[in-house]
Amino acid sequence: MDRRQALKTVAVAAAAASVLPTPAISQGTRHLRMATSWPKNLPGQGTSAERMAQNIAKWSEGKITVRVYGAGELVPAFECYDAAGGGACEMYHAADYYFQGKSKALNFFSTVPFGLTGTETNAWLLSGGQELWDEVGAQFNVKSFAASNTGVQMAGWFNKEINGPDDFKGLTMRMPGLGGEVISQLGATAVTLPAGEIFQALQSGTIDATEFVGPWNDLTLGFYQVAKYYYWPGIHEPATVASCGINLDVWNDMSDWEKSIIEAATRYENDLLTTEFDVNNVRALDQLINQHKVQLKRMPDEVTALMREAAADVVATAGAADPLTKKVYDHWSAFREQAAAWTGISVQGYLNARSL
Amino acid sequence: MDRRQALKTVAVAAAAASVLPTPAISQGTRHLRMATSWPKNLPGQGTSAERMAQNIAKWSEGKITVRVYGAGELVPAFECYDAAGGGACEMYHAADYYFQGKSKALNFFSTVPFGLTGTETNAWLLSGGQELWDEVGAQFNVKSFAASNTGVQMAGWFNKEINGPDDFKGLTMRMPGLGGEVISQLGATAVTLPAGEIFQALQSGTIDATEFVGPWNDLTLGFYQVAKYYYWPGIHEPATVASCGINLDVWNDMSDWEKSIIEAATRYENDLLTTEFDVNNVRALDQLINQHKVQLKRMPDEVTALMREAAADVVATAGAADPLTKKVYDHWSAFREQAAAWTGISVQGYLNARSL
Repeated sequence: MDRRQALKTVAVAAAAASVLPTPAISQGTRHLRMATSWPKNLPGQGTSAERMAQNIAKWSEGKITVRVYGAGELVPAFECYDAAGGGACEMYHAADYYFQGKSKALNFFSTVPFGLTGTETNAWLLSGGQELWDEVGAQFNVKSFAASNTGVQMAGWFNKEINGPDDFKGLTMRMPGLGGEVISQLGATAVTLPAGEIFQALQSGTIDATEFVGPWNDLTLGFYQVAKYYYWPGIHEPATVASCGINLDVWNDMSDWEKSIIEAATRYENDLLTTEFDVNNVRALDQLINQHKVQLKRMPDEVTALMREAAADVVATAGAADPLTKKVYDHWSAFREQAAAWTGISVQGYLNARSL
Repeated sequence: MDRRQALKTVAVAAAAASVLPTPAISQGTRHLRMATSWPKNLPGQGTSAERMAQNIAKWSEGKITVRVYGAGELVPAFECYDAAGGGACEMYHAADYYFQGKSKALNFFSTVPFGLTGTETNAWLLSGGQELWDEVGAQFNVKSFAASNTGVQMAGWFNKEINGPDDFKGLTMRMPGLGGEVISQLGATAVTLPAGEIFQALQSGTIDATEFVGPWNDLTLGFYQVAKYYYWPGIHEPATVASCGINLDVWNDMSDWEKSIIEAATRYENDLLTTEFDVNNVRALDQLINQHKVQLKRMPDEVTALMREAAADVVATAGAADPLTKKVYDHWSAFREQAAAWTGISVQGYLNARSL
């Protein structure tokens, strides 16, 4: 290579570096790095992120590759969103409410207490919710997609029975997002911890109680070894979206074909991982009850009713945080009302007829 | 081309023709024809089949193409399954209960009265149901995938109020599959008609009542113009799967990469079309009630309870039709019991808490 040619190469590389995090493109192949909030290969969210990477490589015949990093491997669990937006990597996989400190609006693209079910969340995203998510994410240089939801979560693990609202007073409980604010209104102290740090905190007594997701994830994390009572229903997280996002400059640089592969891979997980939660929750719940002698309990109606009141207040307050969040909240609220009416005469009406 | 070369080309083409319906492969591109049970581009099932074809072509960078035919274009609505299995085309898009005359087992991969919801259906298919579907389909040289479900359907359109079980006596109603057998036990005459023929039958009085799917599809088909009362919940079809299948010889001839593209396209619709039903049902129901003055009515509990009794009998009888169907029914029944328990403490428990 002569000097002129070498300078030209450097100039092209510099131009590329000015708009794209490196190493984004080499030899016609696009290499992407995905930082996640999950322990590496956590059954569910972690394995789904890996499968997404494999599908992207397979469908694109190797023209797009994704390398997945567990929490702490590239950046700490709750810094993957900033890492993707800032260019330290190109993608993130997490639940957006972990980042509500950046914008309260991110809660609505994750889950909120007494909010939408999984199918309702999908319907909202297709009814204008995705465009709002794009608007919120653009502030942080990120484009995000839903890549599954957990379904209705369990209310959590406790070392004492919950007989009424007073039992939440003085309780230190791991519960992120707006759910944490709801139990705070009942007198609890809410703590946010990533998945990989919950067990030890519960074992050491740093926290008295925890929720994480549901039987499948919770069995993996071993909570049954240090807590005895497992409560339902989890009104604080009716369907937590696992979001997968990409650096907005990288996204805008992609061809329509590349974009379609990324979008397909996230939608694939929105179907498959969501279903895996149902499949494995059934199996894991059986194991928790029959093998590990966990006691399954229903949260008293009095507690649920109080939480519902608190949730209306907490969610409305969060929704008023700033003008863009207000726009999201208003759109979401209007949709929730319509969706609940349809749900009432379809799946809810059916389920209640089936179990008459 | 010399004579030896020409003969070699003919030999290769003949070998390909012996295992594959033509024109399956030309110049490195695989061309597939998909016959459907739907009017061409029916909003929902028809547009989804078209989108699937477009996605397969896009993701594969044109290496796999699919041409979609509406009902009657290539074969009549209910002959697409045989056409795909027999090689008159390579793919079909329908609801498998249309073909229950071939095997009663096909009902379980579509929907059955008081059966699984959409999310439960997905979970069953991932819990061994897909392998059973493969076994049933192999008898007819077809490999099928779920490519959406309708969600809980509406109970149907009537020209008179349903005040009790007696109102079904003497009624001629369009209702395919096992749902039709359930209303027969209540004294109705059940008729199976493809989507494109229902309106005229209802208008001419050939049938007194009909169900099809839900507000979105039913608005398109115009039933509100010839029937007044719209009942819920539709216990006869809690989540009807739109199935997309492929000739088994063609499937077995595909590379892993080709298979992954086909499977991804069906799973994509299993997420997106399923969601479109919820989105558009909300909008269409509003239009039916407020613009077209349709009267929304709840089916009396007495009727629902009688249908539930009849359904248990009808489904068990269908499930005993032959040894393979019995194997499917037993697996499905065991899954339904477990799934209903999980649904009860998750989405059903949550929905009832939300609407307390």
